[in-house]
Amino acid sequence: MHIIEGAINSPKGYKAGGKFVGIKKKRKDLSIIFSEKPAVIAALFTTNVVKAAPVTWNMKIHDSHKPIRSIVINSGNANACTGKKGAEDNEKMAETIALELGILKEEVLVASTGVIGVPLPIDTVVQGIQSLSKELDDELASGLNAAEGIMTTDTILKNIAVEIELDGKKITLAGIAKGSGMIHPNMATMLSFITTDADIEEVLLRKALKDICTNTYNMISVDGDTSTNDMVITMANGMAGNKKITEENDDYQVFYQALYYVNEHLAKEIVKDGEGASKFLEVTLEGAKTVEDARLMVKSVLNSSLVKTAMFGEDANWGRVLCAMGYSGAEFNPEKASLEFEANGEKIRLLEEGLPLKFDEDLAYKILQNHDIKINIFLEEGTAKATGWGCDLSYDYVKINGEYRT
Amino acid sequence: MHIIEGAINSPKGYKAGGKFVGIKKKRKDLSIIFSEKPAVIAALFTTNVVKAAPVTWNMKIHDSHKPIRSIVINSGNANACTGKKGAEDNEKMAETIALELGILKEEVLVASTGVIGVPLPIDTVVQGIQSLSKELDDELASGLNAAEGIMTTDTILKNIAVEIELDGKKITLAGIAKGSGMIHPNMATMLSFITTDADIEEVLLRKALKDICTNTYNMISVDGDTSTNDMVITMANGMAGNKKITEENDDYQVFYQALYYVNEHLAKEIVKDGEGASKFLEVTLEGAKTVEDARLMVKSVLNSSLVKTAMFGEDANWGRVLCAMGYSGAEFNPEKASLEFEANGEKIRLLEEGLPLKFDEDLAYKILQNHDIKINIFLEEGTAKATGWGCDLSYDYVKINGEYRT
Repeated sequence: MHIIEGAINSPKGYKAGGKFVGIKKKRKDLSIIFSEKPAVIAALFTTNVVKAAPVTWNMKIHDSHKPIRSIVINSGNANACTGKKGAEDNEKMAETIALELGILKEEVLVASTGVIGVPLPIDTVVQGIQSLSKELDDELASGLNAAEGIMTTDTILKNIAVEIELDGKKITLAGIAKGSGMIHPNMATMLSFITTDADIEEVLLRKALKDICTNTYNMISVDGDTSTNDMVITMANGMAGNKKITEENDDYQVFYQALYYVNEHLAKEIVKDGEGASKFLEVTLEGAKTVEDARLMVKSVLNSSLVKTAMFGEDANWGRVLCAMGYSGAEFNPEKASLEFEANGEKIRLLEEGLPLKFDEDLAYKILQNHDIKINIFLEEGTAKATGWGCDLSYDYVKINGEYRT
Repeated sequence: MHIIEGAINSPKGYKAGGKFVGIKKKRKDLSIIFSEKPAVIAALFTTNVVKAAPVTWNMKIHDSHKPIRSIVINSGNANACTGKKGAEDNEKMAETIALELGILKEEVLVASTGVIGVPLPIDTVVQGIQSLSKELDDELASGLNAAEGIMTTDTILKNIAVEIELDGKKITLAGIAKGSGMIHPNMATMLSFITTDADIEEVLLRKALKDICTNTYNMISVDGDTSTNDMVITMANGMAGNKKITEENDDYQVFYQALYYVNEHLAKEIVKDGEGASKFLEVTLEGAKTVEDARLMVKSVLNSSLVKTAMFGEDANWGRVLCAMGYSGAEFNPEKASLEFEANGEKIRLLEEGLPLKFDEDLAYKILQNHDIKINIFLEEGTAKATGWGCDLSYDYVKINGEYRT
């Protein structure tokens, strides 16, 4: 597998585009992805009881097991908590695309992100779709525009493309994602779209994506808020011409690894661009009784406001890490816990089998001054491990979210 | 029942004191409460798997059902994650008090609050206890000193005393508490001590306290972090001379109401003094299927970083409230949900049975500019309701916790 300079429309048979149509004040706010041929899909949706209109729409199509042709995404308005009108507006979006591109509205998935509880400016959106539909192509610039059109408070574009080879055929996978607030590790908590030209059975694509999400998107946290709009959608249109993957053979493994890479990359990018984040945290826990326990503890640490503010303050207040593990719901013996901080090749051990170590405060401070910080935790309950990613809690998070709507 | 000018040593037979002994840099850091006669106790402790040394010590005494004579509390160091030495230091604290006051070490409860993972400066603590033990009395000033000695990042003293009458005898209840970070609604998440001279059977005192905690301390949140050291302890020494309360009769109800008032007052004070808080939030939810569901949703709203920053920013971003209810784990139909903000006698309805209302942004802003804000939620699932209290998430929370240890 190797990374290529590409975008969401790099896999064979895909077109894309993104532009400003007037939902937001000036930044790009509409993106469309289109596949020449029907693509099987795998998707995961928010677990929030309050589901935005596009989530409900997409879940129905996902459950029908029918292939799709297009995804339309608007930013600037989440179309959530918008009642019956929200559902109607959502269907209108699908209908407009369908009409423009000569496909069925049931072949269109929709995603929205932005403020909750405000009706979509549907006329603006419809006109925008009509206009953007005519501009879709397979140029790199258009693909990057699509990546930009789904951003809200994001500060960096989240875009990746990779290539693999299956029985002599070149297969491309590409992904875009949107962070960066309301991110909490509980099933697909953001928007992420992956296209591929691989030929693969839907059941295997879905198995792979579900599995991968558990270890990628579901192991990141920005602020503990699980959004109403989250989804990951993977489209596979089979146009690479590889021998169709119908079982978990070597081809499946190669494809799986590439899909894993794309999703892990996007998940980490989302966290790196967490609202107001000044640190990227990687928490690894080894020696848990079960993988579930390991994940619970890692997520609890990543989600603790006190751990996050300590990292922001570059303060080696490791007791907060143990405290967060303690209320995670997982059982463990704190008297067998060890803990270290690591950055840029340097490590400092702070706790050894339950005993706090006298440590070099200067070295600890030096380590915590880095942008990328690892927190390594060792237990003696079993052999399970987990890794997750998060960010610190900064003044800017408060600023961004105190002023979001205004 | 009426509120009196009093302190933790106002009930008959109690002495107290608090002073600076050198654990912190300059603020008072040691408090002692003493009862002339043995007092039955009711207590609740943190549910965190990682329990500080004093929590483990107290739980054993609580389980023995034996009465106690004294509580010693130090601030500036939590004696948590301190291993075997932590347990030894804790016992040493109890022993020192016991020796000074001529009681058994098993009649002494201990509490610690402050930084985690640093061994206690035990010599300093022991000398401090020896000195403070000689200064205990029933003066108001000494009681207020005790309230001050348990503070960490608290900015206001949390102290209350009330009087009731039971069969012609005056009964006094007094309480002190410590906030203000690592506060999360999951069983007694802070330090709170209540003394009374009422004569009441232990089993009833425990029943009352447990019940009251569910609706008071367990319904507040500052930052979602459940501490390793939390406890509520109520002592009743029977010296008021009332006819002993041995059943849930009228006397019990009068006492229960007074105990409820004291604990609710302290719980609200803790939240009002939440780290960096600039707003006091009261969330009430009516019409839930069960009380458990109602509590889950209220706590989820109070705990949402996005709701909290919106309140800090005085932004009527009510969609975040519905979003937080949605990931609380409770089931409800968002299409039947209504929501309003209220402050200072003015209300604004934002959502009516699932439909967002066009609302007067100026009025919403005016309401949110108040310090005390109510969020009222109405569902149509059943008749259960719950109320909880919290605060906003401000720049100062980040500042305080980024610099806590240093």
